[in-house]
Formats: sequence, structure tokens, C-alpha cells
Amino acid sequence: MDDSQYERLRTLRRDLHRHPEPAWREFYTTARLVEVLEPTADELIVGPDFLDADDRLSVPEEATLAEWRERALDAGADRDTVEHLEDGQTGLLAVLERGEGPTVGLRVDIDGLPREESDDPDHEPVAEGFRSETGAMHACGHDAHAAIGVGVFEAIADSDFTGTLKVLFQPAEEIIGGAKAVSHRHLDDIDALLAVHIGLDHPTGEVVAGVTDFLAVSQFHAEFTGEPAHAGGHPAQGTNAVQAMAAAVQNLYAIPRNEDGPTRINAGVVEGGTASNIIPEHASIEGEVRGETTELMAYMRERANDVIEHAAGMHGCEYAVERTGEAPSATNDEELVSLGYDVAEGIPGVDSRLRTAPLGGSEDATVLMRRVQETGGTAAYVGVGTDHPGGHHTATFDVDEPSLAIGVDWLSETVREIADEDD
Amino acid sequence: MDDSQYERLRTLRRDLHRHPEPAWREFYTTARLVEVLEPTADELIVGPDFLDADDRLSVPEEATLAEWRERALDAGADRDTVEHLEDGQTGLLAVLERGEGPTVGLRVDIDGLPREESDDPDHEPVAEGFRSETGAMHACGHDAHAAIGVGVFEAIADSDFTGTLKVLFQPAEEIIGGAKAVSHRHLDDIDALLAVHIGLDHPTGEVVAGVTDFLAVSQFHAEFTGEPAHAGGHPAQGTNAVQAMAAAVQNLYAIPRNEDGPTRINAGVVEGGTASNIIPEHASIEGEVRGETTELMAYMRERANDVIEHAAGMHGCEYAVERTGEAPSATNDEELVSLGYDVAEGIPGVDSRLRTAPLGGSEDATVLMRRVQETGGTAAYVGVGTDHPGGHHTATFDVDEPSLAIGVDWLSETVREIADEDD
Amino acid sequence: MDDSQYERLRTLRRDLHRHPEPAWREFYTTARLVEVLEPTADELIVGPDFLDADDRLSVPEEATLAEWRERALDAGADRDTVEHLEDGQTGLLAVLERGEGPTVGLRVDIDGLPREESDDPDHEPVAEGFRSETGAMHACGHDAHAAIGVGVFEAIADSDFTGTLKVLFQPAEEIIGGAKAVSHRHLDDIDALLAVHIGLDHPTGEVVAGVTDFLAVSQFHAEFTGEPAHAGGHPAQGTNAVQAMAAAVQNLYAIPRNEDGPTRINAGVVEGGTASNIIPEHASIEGEVRGETTELMAYMRERANDVIEHAAGMHGCEYAVERTGEAPSATNDEELVSLGYDVAEGIPGVDSRLRTAPLGGSEDATVLMRRVQETGGTAAYVGVGTDHPGGHHTATFDVDEPSLAIGVDWLSETVREIADEDD
Amino acid sequence: MDDSQYERLRTLRRDLHRHPEPAWREFYTTARLVEVLEPTADELIVGPDFLDADDRLSVPEEATLAEWRERALDAGADRDTVEHLEDGQTGLLAVLERGEGPTVGLRVDIDGLPREESDDPDHEPVAEGFRSETGAMHACGHDAHAAIGVGVFEAIADSDFTGTLKVLFQPAEEIIGGAKAVSHRHLDDIDALLAVHIGLDHPTGEVVAGVTDFLAVSQFHAEFTGEPAHAGGHPAQGTNAVQAMAAAVQNLYAIPRNEDGPTRINAGVVEGGTASNIIPEHASIEGEVRGETTELMAYMRERANDVIEHAAGMHGCEYAVERTGEAPSATNDEELVSLGYDVAEGIPGVDSRLRTAPLGGSEDATVLMRRVQETGGTAAYVGVGTDHPGGHHTATFDVDEPSLAIGVDWLSETVREIADEDD
Repeated sequence: MDDSQYERLRTLRRDLHRHPEPAWREFYTTARLVEVLEPTADELIVGPDFLDADDRLSVPEEATLAEWRERALDAGADRDTVEHLEDGQTGLLAVLERGEGPTVGLRVDIDGLPREESDDPDHEPVAEGFRSETGAMHACGHDAHAAIGVGVFEAIADSDFTGTLKVLFQPAEEIIGGAKAVSHRHLDDIDALLAVHIGLDHPTGEVVAGVTDFLAVSQFHAEFTGEPAHAGGHPAQGTNAVQAMAAAVQNLYAIPRNEDGPTRINAGVVEGGTASNIIPEHASIEGEVRGETTELMAYMRERANDVIEHAAGMHGCEYAVERTGEAPSATNDEELVSLGYDVAEGIPGVDSRLRTAPLGGSEDATVLMRRVQETGGTAAYVGVGTDHPGGHHTATFDVDEPSLAIGVDWLSETVREIADEDD
Repeated sequence: MDDSQYERLRTLRRDLHRHPEPAWREFYTTARLVEVLEPTADELIVGPDFLDADDRLSVPEEATLAEWRERALDAGADRDTVEHLEDGQTGLLAVLERGEGPTVGLRVDIDGLPREESDDPDHEPVAEGFRSETGAMHACGHDAHAAIGVGVFEAIADSDFTGTLKVLFQPAEEIIGGAKAVSHRHLDDIDALLAVHIGLDHPTGEVVAGVTDFLAVSQFHAEFTGEPAHAGGHPAQGTNAVQAMAAAVQNLYAIPRNEDGPTRINAGVVEGGTASNIIPEHASIEGEVRGETTELMAYMRERANDVIEHAAGMHGCEYAVERTGEAPSATNDEELVSLGYDVAEGIPGVDSRLRTAPLGGSEDATVLMRRVQETGGTAAYVGVGTDHPGGHHTATFDVDEPSLAIGVDWLSETVREIADEDD
Repeated sequence: MDDSQYERLRTLRRDLHRHPEPAWREFYTTARLVEVLEPTADELIVGPDFLDADDRLSVPEEATLAEWRERALDAGADRDTVEHLEDGQTGLLAVLERGEGPTVGLRVDIDGLPREESDDPDHEPVAEGFRSETGAMHACGHDAHAAIGVGVFEAIADSDFTGTLKVLFQPAEEIIGGAKAVSHRHLDDIDALLAVHIGLDHPTGEVVAGVTDFLAVSQFHAEFTGEPAHAGGHPAQGTNAVQAMAAAVQNLYAIPRNEDGPTRINAGVVEGGTASNIIPEHASIEGEVRGETTELMAYMRERANDVIEHAAGMHGCEYAVERTGEAPSATNDEELVSLGYDVAEGIPGVDSRLRTAPLGGSEDATVLMRRVQETGGTAAYVGVGTDHPGGHHTATFDVDEPSLAIGVDWLSETVREIADEDD
Repeated sequence: MDDSQYERLRTLRRDLHRHPEPAWREFYTTARLVEVLEPTADELIVGPDFLDADDRLSVPEEATLAEWRERALDAGADRDTVEHLEDGQTGLLAVLERGEGPTVGLRVDIDGLPREESDDPDHEPVAEGFRSETGAMHACGHDAHAAIGVGVFEAIADSDFTGTLKVLFQPAEEIIGGAKAVSHRHLDDIDALLAVHIGLDHPTGEVVAGVTDFLAVSQFHAEFTGEPAHAGGHPAQGTNAVQAMAAAVQNLYAIPRNEDGPTRINAGVVEGGTASNIIPEHASIEGEVRGETTELMAYMRERANDVIEHAAGMHGCEYAVERTGEAPSATNDEELVSLGYDVAEGIPGVDSRLRTAPLGGSEDATVLMRRVQETGGTAAYVGVGTDHPGGHHTATFDVDEPSLAIGVDWLSETVREIADEDD
């Protein structure tokens, strides 16, 4: 990649970093990507044309969407594009058609996280003036993913590649809520799918040809409903939803470990009650369970449901559990891993290549990988190392920008090689 | 009370009901009361002249105050008055000077609660078009208290009363955070103080000359701080503030009952965490403890602190506990109770009079009662029954408006009788 | 009471103190009382003739009874009496018939507690050589009660009393399991019933004519049953009864306080599991709930059942709850209280008499009091103060022996006065 | 193995099964093994000569030892041997010296579990008349291990083996408390150590040449001490050790899962309190933590200590934690695994051989394996499959006796092969 290309990618990444948008609110992001990709793409399939709206999970209410839509417009997003993204149907598919040859897919995700970014003056985005302006944060590098997606698209457009390239800019990965909606309409012709993630505790210069050990995940929203009462005058006339929630939290984390493999549980966001002197009439938990396999995740999900049901019953409360996101585990196709691993050898900046390395987390890319594999294609999830000062999802996460060039060079070369092998 | 007086009181009460304002945000309320009382009062001591600002507890941040100030102005509050109430120093004291005689105090509170009002079409304020427009709610009848305060003031102004009447329109009772701030500057000359509450499960037509069994109360804000981490990839690297909070909640409610008398505990508002896939790095509890005596309250407060400290330590978290409101228990002076009881006999609409009845709740009026008693005066807390469809602090609470007239008639007659007795 | 009488009572009390026997195991105690009372009594109604066996609660298994029967015989109890007390049907009724007159009842209880006695050399029973030899302990003064019962019986026998005296030596009070069984057969002719307790935090020389504030009580045994599994190899294949029990304990103590009056909860004895490396397949709780009224006790009992049910369900366990003891609240008859209060004035050693004082505990004497009251008699529960170094039910509890004489003198005089009043 | 040998082994195994003895109480077992081995052995190193008494963990009190010693004698154990096993120093080492050659060790464990055996008539030991008579149970096959140890010893004695054979009959494995005590004195000359376990979910006919995935383990006894008080009269004057214990249990199981590998936690035996109406003054937990590595075990141990400390502090109790057993993880030496795997091919009855299979549990054999490896020897832990109707440690566990012959044949052949290879 030459310097001017790198400069453009970096500028794009910083622009997206300044405007992080959580799941189903990627209005600015989508609009900017449309703008950047339009000159090169043969086709851009945007928002409602890209998704099945009913398969989306955890879509925010219209009031929230409206607020973010407004913010995107204020930040300069193209009004036509934003209006096209009705109901928060965000994201896009960029298509490049270069004659006979295989159809290669690249999936990148584009959403931010609902958390504050650090304002430490030593935090690079603060020092360099591109800290988040939205209250949300790109704390997992999806800004870099989007930039890499654009970079690969342009590099392939500029190359001798023959075949079709489809780059999927997927919304709502962080809530494990987007992949299912994009899995039905534009994947069936894909012969080889690459999904990419940056960082994952690998340093700049290291690449991973096959990221393994995806945890299957299921996210849930649990609601406890009791009866309010004055906490001084009538404590026994209330039914206390916060007591139910607290009993649930204590016992959720205490679900037995499973001898068949790793499991996870988290009550990530909780709230309840209205005032210190009112017996709390409602409480809720946003949580998740994971397992090394889809079966282990199901074990945790069922035990969690039992805990929630009886924590409510114990305190006389009603309850409801809604599944808000879910992704299975998945495996890489060995041939695609080998190909990526071989290609990595010659890429400038790559000083360490790993055939495989474990993720230990979850990803709804697994939905897409399974879909492609079921329709006869192959899939692999690859990692591009980057030095990151803070951990993923923390306030001081950041990417080391030279890794953008490494990612683009490696992936575009891999895409070309897939097409060549197919000959 | 004649019909036109009643009509005016009812109109005032409904106006206040439509504009409920939580603690230290009573901008509209104070401005309206100034407007209504100005024609009659000899002196109005408003906001900063009424309070000691530093003795206020739990004052919201300026951004919140600004929002409510704006809302008050939008609703038509007088700009001069609102601007005078700097920093949320709300409330006022209305003084009537009628020559030689005792100084009688009447204390009413004026704040609303931070909760939604019912939108059930059968809920009277909905049916009659005066449901809350602010998102808060007069769910404890302080709109009626303010109206009664005005009614008594005007009735005494109109009477042959000799002496001084001081009606205190106190802010921030609901958070047990206002009385202390108004206890220093204008109470020391009060010979007899009446404080009044409506409802309390007594029906319209019943009055209570001495409400007893105040629970001493202490409110607190507890904050738990841990370390975030990715819940899938690094669960053991986080320290989980929500687990600490849940352990605290479970064990707070389990503080042993005390053989010396009733106690109370409530974790009324809790929250924690940032996302379902992040080990929660913070959590908090807004809670309160109560006791029949100040000693019992202190017992609960100390045990609660122990629980919070060790719930944090158990999960490796830091913690902080801040006291956000506190009121002692108090007792009525028998002579004042007897006088009110006797007066009640002749009041139109009173069909049941109780010498005493228990409250079983808390009130920061006790701060004022103790202050008056310490400086040689007498004090009593009286109740005016009202049929209320929902319980205090619930979404369907409402007052039966004819009880306004009973309250005004009974209390103004009692004030006059205090002056007469003193002769 | 003369010195030799006092000496005999003291000797009897110390003998009983050395041989404390828990509920339904009062073999030695019953046999000794038979021996002591036989010379004076007109009739002794012993064990099976005194009780309805089927109305007993929490009777131990035969193996346990056999062990205690053996121990009683080893300690010198009369074999004929012990053999008569089949199935642990212990206790006795001593009757004195002195012609025309009212039937007066006196109820004393005779069982010990299943706890170790202190071996501190300063503990009086250690210093004086009458520390428990059975592993159980008279930690609530029932040894003194039995001695007082004998003392009153003998004093009345020696007096000019006309009427009938029935002294009930009741077993199994500590487990709230004995009164119901003795309430049917020998009470219906009782005109006035006195029940007595020593100590209760009143010093030697103080007497209470009417002990009030009995808490209604219900005792229960809860059993949790899960599935065992190897804790290392198969943790998820077990269902963990100890987790269920712990969740129950935490939430039992957290049952909301009740605005209608005092309540109590205790998980007094818990156990569970078989080995540190086996997921525990069983666990149990011996517990109790109390309330100021029978209604409040029922509130606690129902909430406790809910907690136990759902604690089991939360962890996939089965459960069973058995009621093991229960007593209602009760009230004294004013005339009997007044009479006792008046009589106390002239009793040697009484330097403080209280008309009433609260108990704050439970007693199955309330079953007998209610029975006598329902059949037209009167009843009162009286207290005889005694300096006690340790609290009731603790290892260093002891009675100050001169209070035995006060108790006998006061109660025998009261019995005589009842007969006199009746004339 | 011929029929008469098999018959003798089976008889021995059934005899041991009828007399299971928990850790440090293996009086009958040791005495029987001495009796059986004496004719063949060159040297028997018994009890105090075998062990370092001070390195034993969790030795019962003398009263308990005395009871089991008595029971052993009643069952016909040799008095001289039993008396030699002072202080519960049980177990023995049998030595066979056959000239020049390597020293080969075989370690078997001999203790039973403190649990009841099933009395189901279909349970083989019931049907065949060798159900446990001691109240304990051989629920993990150590009766079979002891028999296999004897069988191998006799088979080697009968063979052309040259070298030294040491069979260690180790006590107290179930409590992870015996290996350390036998690790110092007789192991340093061992060139190759085999440890064996039967069952482990492998069927009869399957053998495992290298059992892997030992979990490091640490067992603990936690004691909570509060203050007793009458639960009705003085609930707030007690400090409740059962509440502390329950809070600990709830939070122990909720220690975060660790991303570095499997962990385990179990509160296997709990108890607390003295009576349902006394605030419990003491409570305890017998528990254990495990981890895939020694580091993961240490992580759990430290977090568990934190939980216990703060659960106590939360309820005002004192606490103490004692470590009662501990074993590290360990790995097999590849050459020994290969040798065993190769040998298995020709053994009658072996129809499935596995090079390795995971244990997923803990074993204090790891202490011995590490010791031998540190002094230059090799070690492997092997498995002999057996059909077992109930799981290990459950009431219906039993071994399929033909697997005894397979074990003896395979292991004696392996021992001979080790000697041959060494030539």
C-alpha cells in the first residue's frame, strides 16, 4: 500500500472513530461508507436492500433511532442515504464484478459500543483530536474493520482479480444481533468467506490465519415485576423486584461449571427501583451466557432461565425473559486457513504468522460462516494483530494504525490468491 | 370555607399537581406560591433568604437544575422569582403579623416524587385533565399540602387572630433533605408548630390530632467500583461490581430484626454495568434504613455499612457510602394534641377524630419539631384524612379534594385557638 | 419458707440441673419428680396417662429415646417409672384435693436444651459440682421451674387451702411440642391457670404479675434433595442441595419486615452434604418463624415456604417442609394479673413488682392458657426474676437460687388467695 | 491369570468391600493386606515405618480412631498389626527383591468413603452378600485397587522379573491427604512409577495407558464463629454464623470462571447452629477448589479465602480457614505411556486400548509422580476400565470383577517389560 492510500484509510478510520454508533444506529457510518465506495463499486446494496428487517434482534425504539439519525445528519451524513435506512436498517454490501471466477466474501462489522471513551490526554484519539463525539465508543476496533473493508475493496478493484468480490459491512455485531438479518439474501453464491478482526491481544505485525475457539453465545433481557409500596409504612405490602434480581444475580454466577468445556455467564447491566423509600416494583438484567459449543451454551441458557424463574417466585414477582442475541460456535475450513497462512509470509510488515489462535469470545460472524459452509462454500475467521494500549471494550482501547495497511495488503492478496487457486 | 374559596384552592392544587417538581427543583411551585400569597402576606421570605444552602442534602447537579428551571419558565413561572432561587434554593416562608400574641408555625412540604403518574383513564387527574406534565408525580399529596398552607394563611388573614403566623413551604421532604436547611433561621421564635400530612390511610372526614410513631431514617448512596473486562474472553480479569451489589442487597435485607423495636431497610434504586458482554465495573444502591428510635436507625445504619463494606471486599471491589438524608424520630406535645383534638369536634365534615394514630414512616418535619421543642416551643404532627385510591407513592395515588376544605377549616381554627389559649 | 425446705428445693434443683434431658427424653426428671411428690400427692397422673401421644410434635426416634432411657437408669432413675414412660411419653400431673373450692392449675416445664454447658471454673454449676452430665443443659431454668412446682405443691399441701390444685410438669416446651399433647384431658375443670418462668432478664427480687407480648411461633424442618456427583469430574451432573439451602437461608432472613408488628426468623440448625468432593445431594434447615400475633406468624410461615420452594427449584432440587412445633400468641386475664400483683406486695424478698412486662419470645404455655380461657377459666403467665450471669439458652446461664424461695412463696400465696377470693 | 488366582483376588476384594475404612482408619485393610502379602514379600514396611506422621493431613481425633480400631478388631483384624498402626498411621509398602535391575513402583490406594452404600437388592454387593458393614463405602473402587496391587505383586513374584518391585498401598487418598506422607522415605530409588485407577467411565475391556488432565486440588475447612442469642427475644444480640456461611456458599460458587482453563469449587459438607430458637453461633464448610493447573487452583483458593473472610465480616463473625488436603497437577512420561500402550495389545480381555484419556478429577498420586520425576524417574497414571452401574462416589457404584484380572495381567506384564527394556 502506498502512502497516499494509507493516509486516506487512516483519515477514514479516524472519521469513523469520531462518530461511533451503537447497533442499528450506524447512520453516519453507513452514509460515509456509501460516499467512499460509490466511485469504485459496481453495486452498493444498502440498508433495507441488504437486510431482512424481521430477523434483526434488539432494535432500539424509534425515539432512540430518531436521536441518532439527527446526530448523524448534524455531523454531515448524506440525507438521502440516512433516510433510506428506515427503522435503523443500516449497513451495506459493496459488490465488485470482474468477470468469470469465484465469488469471494469479506465480512467486516461497523458498530460501536455504548460506553464513554477515555479523556486521558495520553489516549491517542484525545491527543490527535479524534476522540468520540457521540457518547459511544469504537472500543473494539470496528472503525478499523470498516476501513480495512474499504481498503481491500479498492485494492482488488485496482488489481487483476477475476471473479466477484462482496464486502459485507455488517451492523449490530456487538449485540450479536446483526448477522442473522444479513445471512439470507446475498450469501448463497459465496464460494469463500473471510471475516476479520483486529487486535485480540496479538501485536502489530502478527496475523492469525484461523481464529478458533468461538464461544457460542446467547444474550437475554430479564425483567422482574413486583408491587411498589412505601418502604417505611408498608414494607410487607410490596413485592420487591430488586430482591428478586439480586437473588438471580447471585445464583446465575453460581451455575455449576460444566465438565464438557468452558462456559460463561455475565449479568452485564442491571437496574431497578424508583426511589429509596419505595419498595422496588421493577428490576432488570441484561445478561449473556456462553459455551464452547452450542450445547454448552444451551446448558447455561436453561439453567439461567431456571434461576431467573425461581428468583422471581421466591420474592413473589412476575418475570419475563427475552432472548436478545444469539450466535453458535463455528469452525474454519482448513484449506482457507492454509491459504491465508501461506500468503502471510510475503506481506510487508508481517513478522509473525500463526496458523491458529483461540478467540475465547463470541462473534455473530459464525452465523454467516455456517451459512456459507451449508451452501457449499468455505469460511475462515482471520486476525490482524495491533498493539492496543487498553483491552477490548475498555475506555482506553485504540488501534495501532500501521496495522491497517498490513490487514489490507494481506487480505487483498488472499482474495486474489483464492481466485487464482480456483482457476 | 365558602364555595369560591374552595374553588380557588382546588384550582391551585390541580395546577400544582400538573407541575410536580422533585426535591430542590420546586421552581414553578415556589413561583406560583409567591404569586398567590403576595397579596395577603406581610412578608415573603423566599429561597436563599429562607434556607441555609450548605445544610441541604442531595442537591442535584446544575445541569439537572437548569433543565427544571427551563421547564418551569416554559410552564409560565415568574422569571424573577425563578432566577432568585439560585442553585435550587427553593421554598418560602409566608409571614402574617397581627399584633401581640404567640408565634404559630405551620409547616407544609411542596416537592413531588420522581415517578411516572398513571395514565389510566379512570385516574381522576387523567379524567379531569390535570395529570402531571413533568414526568414526576405528586404521589404523596404535597400539592394538597401546599394548597392547605395557602388556605390556612388566607383564612387567618381574614380572621380575628392576634399574634404572628409563619407558614413554611418546605422543599425536599421526600428525600429527607430539606428540613435541616430551614431549621436554623426562622424557627426560634415559634411557640407552637403544626406540621400536617394528608391521607396516611385515613378516609375523608377523619382527622388525627397527633400522628405518632415516626421512624428515624437515614438514606444512603453506596457505590461499588471494580474493573471491567470482556465477559467472554477474560472473565477472571474483571472485578465484578454487580456481584458485589447483589451480595449487598441480599444481605442488607437480612440484617437481623431488632428486639427493641421496628426497623426498616430498602435498596430502593440500584443500577450497574455498561454492556451485557462486559464484566460490570460499577454499581450503586440508593437505599435507606429506619428505626422506631434514632438508636434503632443507627443500629441499622452501622450494620448496613458493614454489609456494604464486606460485599465489596468479597468481590475485590472498592466502595464508598454517602449519607444523603437523615431525620430523627420525634414526639408530639400532649397539650397541642389535646387542643387540636378538641377543636376537631366542631369542624364541618369531620366525622371521626382520633387523638393519635401511628405513621410508621419517616418525615423530616421531625427536625423542625425537635428544634422548636429545644427552644421552648411545642410541636405536633397532625393528619387530615382523604380517600385515596392508590397507596402513597404509587402511580394511582390521588386526594379526595373536599378534604382540602376540612384541613383548612380545622387547622385555621386550631391556630386561632392556640392564640386564644395564650391570652 | 424455712431453711430446711429451701435446702431441699435447692438440692432437687441441682440434681435436675446435673441431669438435663431434652424434649420427650425427660425420663430421669419424671422419675425423680414422681419420687419426690409421691408422699404428698393425692394422685399422680404420669406419662401416657397425662398425654395424648399423637398430639406430640417432633418426637425423636426410638434409638435416641433408648439411649436416654438407659442414661436415666444409669443415673439411678426408678425403673418402673421409666418403663411406664413408653415412647418418650414423659411428664406428669400432680393433684391435691382439699375439698370444696376452685380448681387451680400451675404449669411448669421440665425439659433441657441440646447444648453443652460451660466448663468455666467460675460458672457456679462447675464450681459447686452440679454441671450437666448428659451433654444437654438446663440453659433456660426449667430445673428451677420443676423445683418451684414441687415447692408450691408442698406448701399448699401444708396450708389451709380448700379446693383442688393441679401442678402440670410439662415436657417438651423448648421445641414448642409438648403443650398441645397435655391440653385435652386434664384442663377443662381448671378455673385459674398460672404458668411461670424464671429470669427473663428480671433480677432476683423482681416479680412480674403478667408477662405479655408472646410471639406466636412456628417451627419447621426443611429438607432439600438433589443428586450427587463427583465435584471434580462431573460438577454439572449433580444438583446441589447445599446451594439450594444457602439460597434459602439468605432469602429467609430477608423476608420483608411487617408493618403490623414484630416478626422473627431463624435458620437455627443447618447441615448438608457428605464429602468435600461430592456435589451435596441433601441439606436441611431446622428453623422457626414468629410473629407478635398468630397472623404475623402465618405471614412469615407462608413467605418462608415460598422461599424454600423456590430456593429448591432454582437449583433443581426437590424439597419438603414439615411443621415441627407451633404455638399461638396469648393474653393474660386482668383479674388474675391484679391478684398476683397485689399478693406480691407482702412476699419476703420481693423488692420490685411489675404489673406487666413483655416477653418477646414464644412459649407453648399459650396453648394451655387459650384452652383454659376457652372453657371459661382465667389464665396468667407470671415471671420470677433471678440474676442470671449468661443469657437464656447460652452456655453460662444459671439461676440465683434464693429466687426459688421467692417463687414458691409468691405463687403458693397467690394460689391460696385465688381460693379465698372464690369464696 | 488362572481361575484359582482370580477366585482368590475376588474373595479378597469382596472382603475389603465389606470392611471399607475412611482415611487414616484403614486398620482392617492394612492388617488383611499384611496377612495376604507376608508369604510372598521380601519385606513389608508397615504404617509408621512407611509414613512421615507429621506430613499427614486431616487425621481424625483419637476417639474416632479408637472406634475404628475396635471395629477392625471385632471384624477379625490381627491385633499386633492394628496396634502397630499407632495414631492411624496406616498403609504399607510391599517389597520384592529379584536381583539386579530397575526399581519399579506401583501405587494403589486403599481407603473408603464416608458414605452409606445402597441397600437396593439389585445392587451386586447386596445380592452377593458383601455390602459394607461399617457405614462407610468403597464407592470409588479402592478395594479393587488393593486387590490388583496384591495380584501384581504375586504375579511378579511368580515371574522371571529381575529388579526390585515396590507396591505402595497408600492410605487417605480420598481426602488428598496421604500421598505427601509417603513421598519422602521410599521413593527416591524408583526408576518407573505406575499409579492405577479402575473405572473412570471406561468399560470393562478398555485400558488407558496415560490418564491426563489431573486437576490440581486444595481442600479446606472453614469455621465461622458468632455469638448465640435467643432468636425470639434477642435476635439483634446474636451474630449469626449460619448467615455468614450461607453468604459464603452463595459467593464461593460464583467465583468467576477463568479463561486460562477449567476450575472447580464445591462446598461439600456444611453444618451450623444448635437449636431452631438460638441464633447460630457456629457454622462450617468442608470444601475444595480445583484447577487444570496448580496456578488455576491457587487462583480459586485465593478467591475462596476472600469470600470466606468477607462473608464472616459481613455478619460480624470470626472465621478460620484450614487447608486439609492439597495435590498439584501432573503429567505422564511419554515413554512409559507408550510402553503400557504397546503391552496392552496382547493382554487377554483388552478389547480397546487408549493411549490417553482425560481424568477431569484430582488424585494425590500426582505428589508421588512429581517426586519420582524430580529424582530422575518416570511416571504414568494408567486406567483399567470396568463397567460400573453407578457413578464414582455414588451409593450404587460397583466394579465388574473380571476387570481385576485384566488389570493384574496388564500391569504385571508392563512391570516385566519395564525391566526388560532396561536391560
